[in-house]
Amino acid sequence: MAARLELQPDRLFPADPALRAIARRLHETVRDLPIISPHGHTDPSWFADNAPFPNPSELLITPDHYVFRMLYSQGIALEDLGIQPVEPGGRPVETDPRKVWRRFAENYHLFSGTPSRMWHDWVYSEVFGLDVVLSAETADLYYDTMDAALKTDAFRPRALFERFNIELIATTEDPLDLLPHHAKLKRDGWGDKVITAFRPDNVLDPDYEGFLDNLETLADITGCETTGWLGYLDALKDRRAYFREHGATSTDHGHPTAFTADLTQAECEALFHDIVTGASTPAQRELFRGQMLTEMAKMSLEDGLVMQLHPGCFRNHNDALFARFGRNMGADIPVATEYVEALRPLLNKFGNNPDFTLIMFTLDEDSYSRELAPLAGHYPALKLGPPWWFHDSPEGMRRFRERTTETAGFYNTVGFNDDTRAFLSIPARHDVARRMDCVWLAQLVAEHRLPEEEAAVIASDLAYNLAKRAYKL
Amino acid sequence: MAARLELQPDRLFPADPALRAIARRLHETVRDLPIISPHGHTDPSWFADNAPFPNPSELLITPDHYVFRMLYSQGIALEDLGIQPVEPGGRPVETDPRKVWRRFAENYHLFSGTPSRMWHDWVYSEVFGLDVVLSAETADLYYDTMDAALKTDAFRPRALFERFNIELIATTEDPLDLLPHHAKLKRDGWGDKVITAFRPDNVLDPDYEGFLDNLETLADITGCETTGWLGYLDALKDRRAYFREHGATSTDHGHPTAFTADLTQAECEALFHDIVTGASTPAQRELFRGQMLTEMAKMSLEDGLVMQLHPGCFRNHNDALFARFGRNMGADIPVATEYVEALRPLLNKFGNNPDFTLIMFTLDEDSYSRELAPLAGHYPALKLGPPWWFHDSPEGMRRFRERTTETAGFYNTVGFNDDTRAFLSIPARHDVARRMDCVWLAQLVAEHRLPEEEAAVIASDLAYNLAKRAYKL
Amino acid sequence: MAARLELQPDRLFPADPALRAIARRLHETVRDLPIISPHGHTDPSWFADNAPFPNPSELLITPDHYVFRMLYSQGIALEDLGIQPVEPGGRPVETDPRKVWRRFAENYHLFSGTPSRMWHDWVYSEVFGLDVVLSAETADLYYDTMDAALKTDAFRPRALFERFNIELIATTEDPLDLLPHHAKLKRDGWGDKVITAFRPDNVLDPDYEGFLDNLETLADITGCETTGWLGYLDALKDRRAYFREHGATSTDHGHPTAFTADLTQAECEALFHDIVTGASTPAQRELFRGQMLTEMAKMSLEDGLVMQLHPGCFRNHNDALFARFGRNMGADIPVATEYVEALRPLLNKFGNNPDFTLIMFTLDEDSYSRELAPLAGHYPALKLGPPWWFHDSPEGMRRFRERTTETAGFYNTVGFNDDTRAFLSIPARHDVARRMDCVWLAQLVAEHRLPEEEAAVIASDLAYNLAKRAYKL
Repeated sequence: MAARLELQPDRLFPADPALRAIARRLHETVRDLPIISPHGHTDPSWFADNAPFPNPSELLITPDHYVFRMLYSQGIALEDLGIQPVEPGGRPVETDPRKVWRRFAENYHLFSGTPSRMWHDWVYSEVFGLDVVLSAETADLYYDTMDAALKTDAFRPRALFERFNIELIATTEDPLDLLPHHAKLKRDGWGDKVITAFRPDNVLDPDYEGFLDNLETLADITGCETTGWLGYLDALKDRRAYFREHGATSTDHGHPTAFTADLTQAECEALFHDIVTGASTPAQRELFRGQMLTEMAKMSLEDGLVMQLHPGCFRNHNDALFARFGRNMGADIPVATEYVEALRPLLNKFGNNPDFTLIMFTLDEDSYSRELAPLAGHYPALKLGPPWWFHDSPEGMRRFRERTTETAGFYNTVGFNDDTRAFLSIPARHDVARRMDCVWLAQLVAEHRLPEEEAAVIASDLAYNLAKRAYKL
Repeated sequence: MAARLELQPDRLFPADPALRAIARRLHETVRDLPIISPHGHTDPSWFADNAPFPNPSELLITPDHYVFRMLYSQGIALEDLGIQPVEPGGRPVETDPRKVWRRFAENYHLFSGTPSRMWHDWVYSEVFGLDVVLSAETADLYYDTMDAALKTDAFRPRALFERFNIELIATTEDPLDLLPHHAKLKRDGWGDKVITAFRPDNVLDPDYEGFLDNLETLADITGCETTGWLGYLDALKDRRAYFREHGATSTDHGHPTAFTADLTQAECEALFHDIVTGASTPAQRELFRGQMLTEMAKMSLEDGLVMQLHPGCFRNHNDALFARFGRNMGADIPVATEYVEALRPLLNKFGNNPDFTLIMFTLDEDSYSRELAPLAGHYPALKLGPPWWFHDSPEGMRRFRERTTETAGFYNTVGFNDDTRAFLSIPARHDVARRMDCVWLAQLVAEHRLPEEEAAVIASDLAYNLAKRAYKL
Repeated sequence: MAARLELQPDRLFPADPALRAIARRLHETVRDLPIISPHGHTDPSWFADNAPFPNPSELLITPDHYVFRMLYSQGIALEDLGIQPVEPGGRPVETDPRKVWRRFAENYHLFSGTPSRMWHDWVYSEVFGLDVVLSAETADLYYDTMDAALKTDAFRPRALFERFNIELIATTEDPLDLLPHHAKLKRDGWGDKVITAFRPDNVLDPDYEGFLDNLETLADITGCETTGWLGYLDALKDRRAYFREHGATSTDHGHPTAFTADLTQAECEALFHDIVTGASTPAQRELFRGQMLTEMAKMSLEDGLVMQLHPGCFRNHNDALFARFGRNMGADIPVATEYVEALRPLLNKFGNNPDFTLIMFTLDEDSYSRELAPLAGHYPALKLGPPWWFHDSPEGMRRFRERTTETAGFYNTVGFNDDTRAFLSIPARHDVARRMDCVWLAQLVAEHRLPEEEAAVIASDLAYNLAKRAYKL
């Protein structure tokens, strides 16, 4: 007989009864707050078109690199999970989504103890009403139940959005995106609910695939001359303004390092010349990325967009996989990341200005207590993004609070980001974050370090208010 | 109505009743032990002159960079906190200490979850008898109560020293200090209570502001010829002897890295020549700092002073702030710090000698389990200083014991240092340290890893005996 | 009166009653599983010859660097612990094992809170039936009791092996070892119980003492021409085959870094030429070590040996100690270790092949969540070795699970390794590992993150099945 699946109301709360009681009381005060999702990667066409999701596998497995990388790590070919290679040929791709689902179900034990397990169980129970644990045995029951549900109107994107009590979601687009989906959303009265964010890596990073082509497209879109430094800056300003018209309140920058620079205009012009003529060295390209962060900060002070930076990931570590499947296939690996020297040029220029906000993320948890909390506990412009990507687990969230609160407090942090393209997991992720923050606060209360009334105020700030404030929502 | 402020006797103890009971029993055995404060930055003139502290803000806010950096990080100008710039001009400085106090009170929520909050609450409740939580509403009550108390004899420095059950405090002075306050203290019979420590950064580090001028002053004071290597060493020996006469049992070294060197005398002379003629490169200056640590170790073996080293801080990260306000304004940021290669020259020379003691501090907690505990668990000369500065929080203390005990045990550590210039917080900080050590020991007892009688012995050692032994007090 | 020594059945379980009850139930399901010890350093002659151990000190102190390095760190000379220097002369060596034992007993408090304390207490209580705590007072009682026991047949190595419920143990030998003890073990029908592992550092690492001599010996043993690249590779293949005949299922590589390389054959030949002619630079020697890891991986794909790599230790940090006592004297210190760039050449070549297994160990715990779990959660070939050496403590085990499970799950790990030369501590170490894994699982269960039935399956996998599977036993 299949094991029962039941979401326990006290999940993630500590076993100790006193701690659990406090955590539960705090959580009750934030459980039903609307969701603010200021940083994520859902597809805006879902909300613009409101078409049904095709089937359980294409909704929950194929697009989620958290899921398929774990299966891959245990020797399951991506093709057998229905993932399409960039170019045809090679091992045939599984085309039956039910078979993909069964393969996942048979290997569900691989996810024991991982956040993916929690998110998926939440989705199965809460969204689809399933009450047995996923396994080889229950795979078809799952598939049939979910597939049938997805065909109903109640499971279309906008209905789920409302059901999930989402107040606002930000998607992420690059400057070459014309934002047609956001335009439609605006026309449909959804412009305040689904906004964009400005992610210019593909026109700021000379190592990005197709960088020079992207600059040409940028010129076409903006009418600016992107072969010269000032025209290039104008083009970026133009696109930032366009994104602001489509709701953007923030920019988002994924760089290999946190390196920033502060060059003179003459140095910038000379550097840009080498960059666009393709004559640049790797060091020059890193210098350019660093300078562009400082330029983005400057533009943020002018147009008010909040700036987000998340460095420290070795992208596309697996050559063969990248050649066959392209980006975002679970082969991005965090590396040690230095912030103190790296951010100094930018912070010395703009860090003392309280009108500027730079939200820093990290994949190197060592930097929490050593570098990031001390920096955020000093510079008015700097705030700490939440534990991110590999670290938005219960343990990752606990480590974040344990290592940053002592030096940066709560008010130099910005609430939770789900950062996901897995739409159905959004409420589950916010649920985990709210619970873990309440657990941390409960510990402070139980140890007589914080009165419970103050903890309740902080719980609401962490769950809702800080995100609105930090992202100017 | 204002929330009640009440110091709970079980504060910082875990919620679990069994653990809490053990922690409480252990803590009872150490709670009333005298305070040994072997490393700190209180002003010796306080104890020498025994004048009243001027007012609550100048006692508790203006001199405490833990406090004002947090306020600054949230956009409050230092001038508005009454902090004087190095040079006049610019934004006017708030001169009314009551207004400064109100500004702090209005923002007291920024400190929730931080050690500063605990220390301050302890001071308000225990020292001043306040029984409501600090807030905008209670700001004036606080100010009036504390201001009145500070005008009484019971709140003069020496009375508080006795009230706090301090057995000994070490202040920190540089070699150019003639130690007039310590001389007066000696005359007043306080020479065994307030001693100095020898902190020679300003005459060892060629990058220190005014280094060459400092060498001239050093020559004036000692009558040694500090423009030559041997005369320079003699001058340092001379000052060490002078400091020993004023109670010093230790030296203290704050270097950018833990780098040490072991050069020949000819190499030292050549290097020193380049240093004092101002012709040195950054690499030479680092080499010089490294060599001087080894020289200090050698002198320690001769004169018995215990050596302390705390590397790994990027000082004065914020240029604009440094230009306007100078050093120690909350803009010192820890950096990743390497110990294994760095300390090898010094340890290979003196590390096997049990008559030499080198106490290592770190701001890079990653080094606890990886480098420092293994080094201290091997070299007879090496001991681990307590969690320090950013890390003397309850969490920082727990991390320290969790990551060092397994490899270095308890007896390669040296008890607690408060390292503070905030005199009133000293008992609060020792209280936190004693509680957190008892919590750690209670966990070992509860998990049947240590008999409770042994834990009680260790608790006393951590609270009192190890500091006396390590610092030769 | 001496304090009682009693192994508590709930040792290492959390104080919280609910957590403890779950941990206890889980532990009951794995407590009596046989021990698989796939990676260790016991002496195969013990099992081959089955001679009695000489006396308590030579069994428990002299060969255990965990023990004598702690005593050394507190100023006790190694000679006073009966440890023989490499060359005669200098301080006389204590020859009375009873005096050595007393010295250890007097200082047993140094081990409070360390894993050594737990292992030793387990051995005293469980193996020798002692019921008072070791101290100066009980030193002779201990010595006499243990010395008498060691003279009985029940305490000979094979009897203890059976008593400890060991199913299989792997020792570690280098390619120049002719494996006579394993041959005898095979003849005695113990060939399935005691196997070897192939540890070729002394013929792969040009910086190893006697490297060039070792290559000559390798030529003598194999008949291959080890002065040329292809002959050298053939010799290694030959020895791998020999080791496989003596039970080996794995290789083991202790390199200073995790650096790997992927050179062309021409580059390999040129590099090898410089290496064997002694004309190589340090960079070339590092390149050679890196290339040899990739060669070992290639051979593993051919012959099926599982590959283990543990980088990141600065060996023989203490020059004077090394000169007098040689290797493995407690002066090996972990260093920060980079994996993402370093392993890329090897992983890009073989990491996608599920038929290859690379088990990675680390002494740099920072890499758990940042580098190793993400790599193991992606590459089919990569698995994570358990917390190792300095980190096989209860805290180290907890940190390992807390930082790797979220990203790599349980099934990219390989169970426990005791990695010890202290034979009597093996069951104690596995006991600690099983308990700590059950504690971690109990927490997941108590927090409603994992059903208890699933946790029980995982507990068995971690205690027994994963080691068998990963090491192909």
